[in-house]
Amino acid sequence: MSLSSEALSVGEDFSDRLRMVRDTSVELCNTLHEEDFVVQSMPDVSPTKWHLAHTTWFFETFVLAPRVPGYCVFDERYEYLFNSYYYTVGQMHPRPRRGLLSRPTVAETMAYRSHVDAYLQRLMEDEQGDPELEALITLGLHHEQQHQELLLTDIKHVFAQNPLCPVFREAGTSGDARPPPMEFIEGASGLVEIGHRGDGFCFDNECPRHHTYLHPHALATRPVTNEEYLEFIRDGGYRTPELWLSDGWATVQREHWDRPLYWSEGLDSVFTLNGQRALEAAEPVSHVSYYEADAFTRWAGMRLPTEAEWEVAAESHRVSGNFMEDGRFHPMPAPVRESGGRPLQVFGDVWEWTASPYVPYPGFRPLAGAIGEYNGKFMCNQLVLRGGSCVTASSQVRVSYRNFFYPDQRWQFMGIRPARDA
Amino acid sequence: MSLSSEALSVGEDFSDRLRMVRDTSVELCNTLHEEDFVVQSMPDVSPTKWHLAHTTWFFETFVLAPRVPGYCVFDERYEYLFNSYYYTVGQMHPRPRRGLLSRPTVAETMAYRSHVDAYLQRLMEDEQGDPELEALITLGLHHEQQHQELLLTDIKHVFAQNPLCPVFREAGTSGDARPPPMEFIEGASGLVEIGHRGDGFCFDNECPRHHTYLHPHALATRPVTNEEYLEFIRDGGYRTPELWLSDGWATVQREHWDRPLYWSEGLDSVFTLNGQRALEAAEPVSHVSYYEADAFTRWAGMRLPTEAEWEVAAESHRVSGNFMEDGRFHPMPAPVRESGGRPLQVFGDVWEWTASPYVPYPGFRPLAGAIGEYNGKFMCNQLVLRGGSCVTASSQVRVSYRNFFYPDQRWQFMGIRPARDA
Amino acid sequence: MSLSSEALSVGEDFSDRLRMVRDTSVELCNTLHEEDFVVQSMPDVSPTKWHLAHTTWFFETFVLAPRVPGYCVFDERYEYLFNSYYYTVGQMHPRPRRGLLSRPTVAETMAYRSHVDAYLQRLMEDEQGDPELEALITLGLHHEQQHQELLLTDIKHVFAQNPLCPVFREAGTSGDARPPPMEFIEGASGLVEIGHRGDGFCFDNECPRHHTYLHPHALATRPVTNEEYLEFIRDGGYRTPELWLSDGWATVQREHWDRPLYWSEGLDSVFTLNGQRALEAAEPVSHVSYYEADAFTRWAGMRLPTEAEWEVAAESHRVSGNFMEDGRFHPMPAPVRESGGRPLQVFGDVWEWTASPYVPYPGFRPLAGAIGEYNGKFMCNQLVLRGGSCVTASSQVRVSYRNFFYPDQRWQFMGIRPARDA
Amino acid sequence: MSLSSEALSVGEDFSDRLRMVRDTSVELCNTLHEEDFVVQSMPDVSPTKWHLAHTTWFFETFVLAPRVPGYCVFDERYEYLFNSYYYTVGQMHPRPRRGLLSRPTVAETMAYRSHVDAYLQRLMEDEQGDPELEALITLGLHHEQQHQELLLTDIKHVFAQNPLCPVFREAGTSGDARPPPMEFIEGASGLVEIGHRGDGFCFDNECPRHHTYLHPHALATRPVTNEEYLEFIRDGGYRTPELWLSDGWATVQREHWDRPLYWSEGLDSVFTLNGQRALEAAEPVSHVSYYEADAFTRWAGMRLPTEAEWEVAAESHRVSGNFMEDGRFHPMPAPVRESGGRPLQVFGDVWEWTASPYVPYPGFRPLAGAIGEYNGKFMCNQLVLRGGSCVTASSQVRVSYRNFFYPDQRWQFMGIRPARDA
Repeated sequence: MSLSSEALSVGEDFSDRLRMVRDTSVELCNTLHEEDFVVQSMPDVSPTKWHLAHTTWFFETFVLAPRVPGYCVFDERYEYLFNSYYYTVGQMHPRPRRGLLSRPTVAETMAYRSHVDAYLQRLMEDEQGDPELEALITLGLHHEQQHQELLLTDIKHVFAQNPLCPVFREAGTSGDARPPPMEFIEGASGLVEIGHRGDGFCFDNECPRHHTYLHPHALATRPVTNEEYLEFIRDGGYRTPELWLSDGWATVQREHWDRPLYWSEGLDSVFTLNGQRALEAAEPVSHVSYYEADAFTRWAGMRLPTEAEWEVAAESHRVSGNFMEDGRFHPMPAPVRESGGRPLQVFGDVWEWTASPYVPYPGFRPLAGAIGEYNGKFMCNQLVLRGGSCVTASSQVRVSYRNFFYPDQRWQFMGIRPARDA
Repeated sequence: MSLSSEALSVGEDFSDRLRMVRDTSVELCNTLHEEDFVVQSMPDVSPTKWHLAHTTWFFETFVLAPRVPGYCVFDERYEYLFNSYYYTVGQMHPRPRRGLLSRPTVAETMAYRSHVDAYLQRLMEDEQGDPELEALITLGLHHEQQHQELLLTDIKHVFAQNPLCPVFREAGTSGDARPPPMEFIEGASGLVEIGHRGDGFCFDNECPRHHTYLHPHALATRPVTNEEYLEFIRDGGYRTPELWLSDGWATVQREHWDRPLYWSEGLDSVFTLNGQRALEAAEPVSHVSYYEADAFTRWAGMRLPTEAEWEVAAESHRVSGNFMEDGRFHPMPAPVRESGGRPLQVFGDVWEWTASPYVPYPGFRPLAGAIGEYNGKFMCNQLVLRGGSCVTASSQVRVSYRNFFYPDQRWQFMGIRPARDA
Repeated sequence: MSLSSEALSVGEDFSDRLRMVRDTSVELCNTLHEEDFVVQSMPDVSPTKWHLAHTTWFFETFVLAPRVPGYCVFDERYEYLFNSYYYTVGQMHPRPRRGLLSRPTVAETMAYRSHVDAYLQRLMEDEQGDPELEALITLGLHHEQQHQELLLTDIKHVFAQNPLCPVFREAGTSGDARPPPMEFIEGASGLVEIGHRGDGFCFDNECPRHHTYLHPHALATRPVTNEEYLEFIRDGGYRTPELWLSDGWATVQREHWDRPLYWSEGLDSVFTLNGQRALEAAEPVSHVSYYEADAFTRWAGMRLPTEAEWEVAAESHRVSGNFMEDGRFHPMPAPVRESGGRPLQVFGDVWEWTASPYVPYPGFRPLAGAIGEYNGKFMCNQLVLRGGSCVTASSQVRVSYRNFFYPDQRWQFMGIRPARDA
Repeated sequence: MSLSSEALSVGEDFSDRLRMVRDTSVELCNTLHEEDFVVQSMPDVSPTKWHLAHTTWFFETFVLAPRVPGYCVFDERYEYLFNSYYYTVGQMHPRPRRGLLSRPTVAETMAYRSHVDAYLQRLMEDEQGDPELEALITLGLHHEQQHQELLLTDIKHVFAQNPLCPVFREAGTSGDARPPPMEFIEGASGLVEIGHRGDGFCFDNECPRHHTYLHPHALATRPVTNEEYLEFIRDGGYRTPELWLSDGWATVQREHWDRPLYWSEGLDSVFTLNGQRALEAAEPVSHVSYYEADAFTRWAGMRLPTEAEWEVAAESHRVSGNFMEDGRFHPMPAPVRESGGRPLQVFGDVWEWTASPYVPYPGFRPLAGAIGEYNGKFMCNQLVLRGGSCVTASSQVRVSYRNFFYPDQRWQFMGIRPARDA
């Protein structure tokens, strides 16, 4: 990432922002009981407790330890427990075993957070305005926000395993909305540029900005809705191998998939962070894998956009939409009144699968040191998603932001914006 | 089981006993944090919370529901969650997924217990002296005591996965004890009788008392110690296929076993419910599988006793020893002073593997109804253990009591008392 | 085993018998193509080629190598390839990988057999009448006959995987036989003796002959037929968990069992060594696991006999029946005319599951040396079957013969003779 | 693919070519025994017999059946057995079970080939010069050549499992060659075109030819040698997680990789189609996965080329090199005399991993009908390799040819040509 603090709003107090983001992580948990913080429902999921500790460890390891003279770690055993995947730092507790740890308790984890927060605030006072420090802290905050999103999608998955169907947040439904028709808008073609520009913060995988060549194409004005996806199901989508990538079909067979994650067998209700609710036809379909997104577009005679097509189309849009801060934690139907040629829901609501494998941009250089393991080593077997979701912090989203997941993963809020050749 | 309440000491108040056993389950947890109640460290292990709820469900289902007119279950969804394996009652939450449930919380589980306890006490007042009710409750209490033992061995396994090595109970060590030499005492041979006798409570699998024929043999005066087991290890026991049953050797290879469960790699310390401690040479070896027990005795030129040999030898012994009530939760060295031909530690300390597959006694009849699933359907692929352990409630142990586990299981307190042909 | 050659008929030429048994192994393969000798359809199955080579290796290793001065092995790499499980001899090619070996070819394997046969015949001429040699060769021949049976059941399994349904041997069907009704005959009770007696050959696991105590009981006059087993299926046998051992039910669920191995989905045809044929109602049900045998008897209000009950009942019977030599390679219906109280099909047709876990007899001593690995190390997790089958060589069967398999295995000709308490 | 027969040399007799390619498949097998045709050593591998039958089925299904009036298939059950993955055609025998089929025998498979060949020749006489027929047959021949390569790499894998180390073809070694130093040649940058051009045959995945943008870069003059790869190993390459992609490191750990496939543990010999031989330092390293290729280049401070970089650099080269026709079936050292700035071994010897995920070219359209399943559905999770290998038929190779494999596969002749940013 370009480690710069420019992303912060002018005049914003940097230590306020630190406090705010750190507090948000804790506030997100305010309906949880201690027991909820412990469970790991599958290897991809981490316990809530783990997210709270790991983000703290990140600050401790990459900010406090190298910069506070004589800093004494809160508990030296935490490095092994809360290192996620930084081999440069050392060995780590195996990911699939995170749910076996009842200790440290939630209270101990909170004490760990307070300890580190106090040191961070003091350090920021001592070295006020130090650009390198602010850059490191900015990175830590973006990292923390990524984990806020994971915390939410992970607790959703945990609660979904429980026949008692716990409610994470009470919320109203979207009612009987009626989305505007899906239209297609032609995008720029020929030689274009993508990648991060300007001085603001970004992750290393968004750089360098570079040329790429786009072929004539068009993008849909809005994501695919539940209703449209239901048509695909009812038309036998999940029983027609010709619609699927070979690995996708193998996954459908092996996992017995016949609907998106969290949909009820009867296709009429869905598990949400607001509890079990009726399936709303107008909402964007969510929790579909790349394989399903790809099969849907093939069935519809369309395709998925590349990440370059997406980024160029989105460049002129303001980053606004249904984000974590809105507190819905669930995608909303596209607004009717805004139709008429403008793309809707470009940011927020659901991450949009692109057809682009997650590979390094030409000339990509990972950051030096352990932080270099942040992004680069995952550039294989995954696909890029764009635009953020209803559980992404808005300040974390940029037009050049590249999210990435394996094609069979679907526990994030993942949706579909179709494209087609023009 | 012979459903009779005669096992209770004369004059004991029955409802006091109910209260005492039920309270013990909760008291055992008094050093635990809410987070500790949730974790399932392997499919064999259940979360603490689950044990507390399941034993309650057992009373609710088999005592309250059929006997309290108009009884309304605490939460109808609990039947699915807390039925262990009674298909006659209905479907159940899959065992390996018990650790995915953060709800009901510990507090809700305790409320469930209180609700059921209140109804039970009222029922006992109403039907005071009803022999059938007392028989049912006796069964429920023995069931609860079995789960107290599992609760302890399960939390030990949970804590053992945690690099922070939590301490369940502080306790002193056994010091530098020096056990008496192992001697052999010849047992009765010819036609003998085994199985439960008398009117007291027993499980159905202890019946009927029946004839069996014993060949000349002798039993060791005490269980094998850590020191003796260390000799086996140092002599290459875990690297010599000829010492092992074929399935045992396959397990050793597959699991990379080279020492008992909970022993440190350096063979000098051991994880206990009292925390990580030095390995005491004089303590009985514990947490060995049947395969290891069998290999050890083959290496030593001995064999394991049959359950009939064990029972006949134990018949004249008083049921006393190092049990759960002693609060050590760890086996003790054999007392020196008591040596001289008498068998030591027959009851308590460690369960003793026998060479006997767990099969029905001749003429065995399971109880009628769902309760008939309690024991009978497990009579395949398991082996019998005898005598109780340091985490068994003493009032639960009888000379005819048959415990049973698979030959590769070792998370219980399982030890070795050798035998040999005379 | 008691290594004695007395089992041979008086006056029989010993080297003729050697030649005859060795030739039989080759003759059994005379309808096979080279390609058929190679396939291993599951880890339990060995390729035909492997059986032919392994039995030869057995003679080479345990007879020629120690007794022929300066004997040079045919190919020193064969020890690794064709040692089945004798760790005392050395390391071995992993069993599940036997089907990956296209070499040695069938022709090379036959050359290996000829080489060893020539040496064996010469050795027998040189040491004619040497009792120890004859004992060793007798053991080798019984071993070879065991593998003849496995060769047949293994090629049946191989062919059954092939949608082309190859025919191993053409044969007529049993027609519309009508078996006699199943009756029960009370057996001896009280103190009895079982185990091998006399001087003839037996395996070590049949010794020593010893006392055991039998409780009053009765055995069925014939095995369960396909028709009777169909009733169990139609009555929902495979969908009723209460009928099954716990491990059996888990197997039914995991393997999606709903009928015996080799039965067609429509329950009207069956794959046999004579090809795909109509299911004959009167034939003994075959290819059922212990779990199925146990569930069937529970459903029928009966139980399986113990091996002692079986042996005592069979003791007065001549070893005759439908064996390998009959060339049918398929079980036959019980003969009608012979009904009337006498047990039928005690020997041959189908192996009969007993309720007895395969454990050592009291005082059991395995043979010294590598041969000691023959039987003893398998005495765990398996159950005893008795009586031989339609693919067992008749001269291999004795009343005391103990066959043993895991409770979920069913690719042998395994059937059910019920018992009940008297 | 552009179904055109123009790829054939002018004046070549089309039916001669058909005969030649078909005969080559059979001739490749002339050192094999029947037993060798049967084995499937892992799911990726198919038995030799299967390749011979499947390529025949391809002609029968896509040429004879639709074009020969009243054509009667050789055996209607073969469609199920020899359909590889064309769901549009119907269901198929599961790939991992191909090695369970001893029938049809080799002789029957050869009869199948003759039957289909005869019909094909007759059809070509009848419809001589029909461009659509010739296009279909051209496709069938390229398909057959792809399977010739697989047949060779598969039998290599089969033989490598056998401790007897069978030799497929006798051949001399490359001796003590000394390759030229590795140099780097700058490639074209800016807007370029890639993809198939002209009228000759190509597969659909090579189309359409299209613009793409290249950033400044340089490519190595030759592939990495065994000696260079040994340095990587000796420098701890396989023990340094920072050098690996995350999924690559997981694979290294899970599979215990510490050297290329087929290398001996001592790193001094290697299994080849010419038998077990000394490892030659100068030969191109082969049988490395994408993960290993990627880690090697990271260790060396380089990277892998993209497929566009590769294609543009290779465009001016004649397709010549060490191919299947050379009969070596093993890569050769780069020739010394030819050094000095020109890239060597661009074609033949080893397939060269590129950094490019296998995705559709912009505007890609799969062929209509079942043939559309040939390539398109595999465009996920795989990476592109270029240039052909020592077991590729030379007439099958084009500069635009895109081979593709999963990043953990290494049983093909896969090597490494490094690139770097200029």
